[in-house]
Amino acid sequence: MLFKNKAKDTRKLVQSGNASLVLGTDLEVEKQIKMIHLTEEDLEIAKALQPFVEKNLAVLVERFYQNLENQPSLLHIINDHSSITRLKQTLTVHISEMFAGVINSHYFEKRKRIAHVHVKIGLQTKWYMCAFQDLLLSLITIIEESLTDREEIFQSVRSVTKILNLEQQLVLEAYDLETERLK
Amino acid sequence: MLFKNKAKDTRKLVQSGNASLVLGTDLEVEKQIKMIHLTEEDLEIAKALQPFVEKNLAVLVERFYQNLENQPSLLHIINDHSSITRLKQTLTVHISEMFAGVINSHYFEKRKRIAHVHVKIGLQTKWYMCAFQDLLLSLITIIEESLTDREEIFQSVRSVTKILNLEQQLVLEAYDLETERLK
Ligand code: HEM
Ligand code: HEM
Repeated sequence: MLFKNKAKDTRKLVQSGNASLVLGTDLEVEKQIKMIHLTEEDLEIAKALQPFVEKNLAVLVERFYQNLENQPSLLHIINDHSSITRLKQTLTVHISEMFAGVINSHYFEKRKRIAHVHVKIGLQTKWYMCAFQDLLLSLITIIEESLTDREEIFQSVRSVTKILNLEQQLVLEAYDLETERLK
Repeated sequence: MLFKNKAKDTRKLVQSGNASLVLGTDLEVEKQIKMIHLTEEDLEIAKALQPFVEKNLAVLVERFYQNLENQPSLLHIINDHSSITRLKQTLTVHISEMFAGVINSHYFEKRKRIAHVHVKIGLQTKWYMCAFQDLLLSLITIIEESLTDREEIFQSVRSVTKILNLEQQLVLEAYDLETERLK
């Protein structure tokens, strides 16, 4: 990554040593991560973005649930199984964790659980993906409002899209397996 | 959109009147499009980006198929059903069309056919999604190398991610329906 080595850059976004990518023995996941070009440096960028994300999380989460009002059936699902108030807390914690810069066995377990929960409540994958796009748009706005350096902006956009893509891959695969299992 | 109205901006990226969003009678898709905040203006931005994308398409497509080498089973699928040479042409046409700024019944039909073809050849959704992320990264690089105006950059990134997200939603939903049907 270029901007880490810019000697004159005093606003250095990324500090190395803050991230951790531990894959275990799953060779498929290793290939998935390679194919999306996700490296420990992306996790360092995520970790560097975490304070900016946390500062804007309340607005992001508010917007996330407001957006679901476009499809009233989603609100019914939520009220049948949980509540907006509870889910706002769940999502706040989850998004902050997405920017912790850590991928390990706990991370993979959690994505499986998220898939199982959403299959159980009957959330179709298309709405799950719509919600992810809304999330991404909010994160892009946070980058827009927080960063000025052109290279940092592009690196951040790249890292954020990789992290969201990996999460979607893992959750949608577990979705398919769980849907299959429940037949 | 702000940058369309900047009187002093002589490098105006977007010209209105070049895009078309025709939804037909599918109310679900209408809601999906609303939830990802995709509008005709995004299609205008796509159309404005099309020449930049086309100029870099050969490199993008080359990289796309090189990336599949990370997972040799994907190359086997390709050689069993087609050839890299043929698919490079298919992908070149398809990506150019993604930036045509047009969404209509033909567009929706094509996404269904893409899903059916990929189900038939046994392509797991996770590899499809990996390939999409590689595509997105290439498109981000094209934006990085083609645009200088900060606002145009962010608008372009937003529009491109929306267009890719909609395509994934449509293809993955048709994937599920087709997998179900074939059982
Ligand atoms: C970006 C997309 C989404 C993310 C990241 C997300 C994240 C989460 C997480 C982390 C949990 C807790 C899982 C656990 O127990 O460990 C959860 C549960 C839940 N989600 Fe989502 N979610 C998303 C989209 C949606 C949507 C669109 C709905 C609309 C119906 C929804 C409804 C629910 C409900 C009802 C639960 C709680 C179920 C229960 O407590 O039994 N989620 N979600
Ligand atoms: C971003 C992801 C991808 C896009 C946008 C894409 C696009 C397309 C398109 C437009 C077609 C032609 C469909 C038609 O007949 O109308 C096609 C066919 C095909 N794709 Fe993909 N594809 C993607 C990922 C992949 C991957 C990862 C593989 C790896 C195995 C693959 C293998 C094939 C094969 C073998 C065919 C041709 C099948 C035949 O002619 O019978 N695709 N794809």
